[in-house]
Amino acid sequence: MKADRNAVVIHGGGPTAVLNASLAGVIETCRATPGINRLYGARFGVQGLADGDWVDLSSISSDCLAGIRKAPGSALGSSRRKLDEQSFGPLLDLLKERGVNYLFFTGGNGSMLTAQAIQEFSISRGREVCVIGIPKTVDNDLCVTDHTPGFGSAARFYAHAVRDIGLDNLALPSPVTIVEVIGRNAGWVTGAAALARGYPDDAPHLIYLPERPPTLDQICADIDRVFRRIGRAVVAVCEGLRDPEGNPFGASLDRAGSKQHELARNLGHSLAQAVQAQTGLRVRSEKPGLLGRSCSLAVSDTDAAESYLCGCEAVKAALQGRAGVMVAMRRTQEKLYRVETFLADLSLVAGIERLVPAEWIGPLGNDITSDFLDYVRPLAGEIPRHDRLG
Amino acid sequence: MKADRNAVVIHGGGPTAVLNASLAGVIETCRATPGINRLYGARFGVQGLADGDWVDLSSISSDCLAGIRKAPGSALGSSRRKLDEQSFGPLLDLLKERGVNYLFFTGGNGSMLTAQAIQEFSISRGREVCVIGIPKTVDNDLCVTDHTPGFGSAARFYAHAVRDIGLDNLALPSPVTIVEVIGRNAGWVTGAAALARGYPDDAPHLIYLPERPPTLDQICADIDRVFRRIGRAVVAVCEGLRDPEGNPFGASLDRAGSKQHELARNLGHSLAQAVQAQTGLRVRSEKPGLLGRSCSLAVSDTDAAESYLCGCEAVKAALQGRAGVMVAMRRTQEKLYRVETFLADLSLVAGIERLVPAEWIGPLGNDITSDFLDYVRPLAGEIPRHDRLG
Repeated sequence: MKADRNAVVIHGGGPTAVLNASLAGVIETCRATPGINRLYGARFGVQGLADGDWVDLSSISSDCLAGIRKAPGSALGSSRRKLDEQSFGPLLDLLKERGVNYLFFTGGNGSMLTAQAIQEFSISRGREVCVIGIPKTVDNDLCVTDHTPGFGSAARFYAHAVRDIGLDNLALPSPVTIVEVIGRNAGWVTGAAALARGYPDDAPHLIYLPERPPTLDQICADIDRVFRRIGRAVVAVCEGLRDPEGNPFGASLDRAGSKQHELARNLGHSLAQAVQAQTGLRVRSEKPGLLGRSCSLAVSDTDAAESYLCGCEAVKAALQGRAGVMVAMRRTQEKLYRVETFLADLSLVAGIERLVPAEWIGPLGNDITSDFLDYVRPLAGEIPRHDRLG
Repeated sequence: MKADRNAVVIHGGGPTAVLNASLAGVIETCRATPGINRLYGARFGVQGLADGDWVDLSSISSDCLAGIRKAPGSALGSSRRKLDEQSFGPLLDLLKERGVNYLFFTGGNGSMLTAQAIQEFSISRGREVCVIGIPKTVDNDLCVTDHTPGFGSAARFYAHAVRDIGLDNLALPSPVTIVEVIGRNAGWVTGAAALARGYPDDAPHLIYLPERPPTLDQICADIDRVFRRIGRAVVAVCEGLRDPEGNPFGASLDRAGSKQHELARNLGHSLAQAVQAQTGLRVRSEKPGLLGRSCSLAVSDTDAAESYLCGCEAVKAALQGRAGVMVAMRRTQEKLYRVETFLADLSLVAGIERLVPAEWIGPLGNDITSDFLDYVRPLAGEIPRHDRLG
């Protein structure tokens, strides 16, 4: 006999290649427990949550669930909208009306801010709802947790992409190729592109993270040096890279909308034009774009398993009476990669961005360190190098 | 005891994800035959061929060969350079000096033109060298052969990419997304993106091929209609798409270099700006770029096997005394997919572009037909759809 307590699960922000694995973890754990009666899924983020646009996930077939678990994107849908404070009252009324005691909120630090606000509002009304966060972001910029579900697969995609682009470049040499990598203000995924290296002269030859803004002069000098040495240069840059004054590179060349908008669309292209103008070398840019967060072919097994785990652990935490917390991961061993989950107060993660630490960026600001590589390797999984002649 | 006849293999044009499989086929078949003593590989295309920058491929280890066979790019290197006629004499002298009787030339219709010219020049000097072409191009625009090695993997990559981008778009709806697909003047790879469809409302919702140039008005009207019906539109366009007057879309918005150069870099972006300006819908563009021809994760097994086969068959043809021909493929059955190879005169393929036939383009000019799908499906392999809720 199931209890009379219901739950709702919701996604916020951009989807990932493994977000649906967290959803599957929530669904399966809710089903297996007598402590939760019905599990609903809010369609398309907070808007669907507030509007009561929910689907009943209790009766989904096991076959369908197994399929959804492996699909990229978000089976529930997501959104980037925020809830305004006036919505909290009606939302809590709706949750109460539908017998919802548990709210599982998958997202990044922005979503955790919303989750925290709902939790606090609920407490002010006598704690009708327990809110549990489930970490999710390809950007890996959530605090407290060792890493976030979604990151390992994005890292794996870019390691493969830069390796294959590097091989193409080795086959048909083109002086300079700039690869724009996702990550907003955090260089985690960009740094992970270093996993592409198998041979000493392999791409990426230079890596720039927004945590250590380079000048255009520095970038051009670095590229020139690499080009003189090996006749080509493949450069990984984070989409959020700016110069030390905070200005986007070459943005004035092609400014249409707001700076942010233009930057998000065109950093690689604008930087390529600026570098070409200054060095005289031919520079092309590559932007794998949305594939970086959605490529089903590059899913990391570890990432998919951990995404599922975080969904399961969120439900368990709720049943243990926890509230206002997010599931987080930490490594339990030095050498062999193992993680365990724990719970972090939402206040420690909500709205706070975790950047790549300075000591994991190379001294010249154009590469990452071996500590960064050791950190990311087990998350992305093995990226075997390809053989070469001789 | 090996004969005193040597061979050289050379690649021309852009690499593919399976080009090295053809190389492996050539190497293994040369090794297995007593009719060929040494096999050389010319580094970086015709320039390396003419300069005598060759590597001896006879002694490469089996392990290394097995690894190279699976690597994207080109282990030998390639180039887009052409040989001028004055180079033919010295080249033939060099081939004679090094005892080369067989020249295996992997490439597209441009490379076959060079291969034919070398063959004819050689005949004018008493036929010192037999030239055998091995088909290779992601664009699939070679005549006579049913399809070309490299195409199936590019088709598979874009089917996966458009499917995953479509799922991302379904999860976090964005009004219009234009995906730019490789293919120069031929819409083969762009049309293959239709393999991404699993459900009736799946991406790509519209497909435009250069063989049937649309007006901007038509594209905007089509997008508007799709958007009104399902609230979003994912559009696949070939990088070589132009309007009926032959002008690139929106090129005047962002013209820097030559038209061709700018077009090759920015069609998706320029078209997105033009459509956004005309429809008022928010339009983003995606350009997977070089990954389309180099992604090792999306290699089609059939494509890799056929690429290898074409390399083997080229050597066999040479040993049978054939010259001035290219290995081609044809289907041997109506229902079950099987191919056999045959030899086509270089004159039938050299410099000639094969476009998508008019009857394989939908009546409205914004999609492909089921015959096109039946043609491409076995080449790209199965693209399983992902499950959805409900």
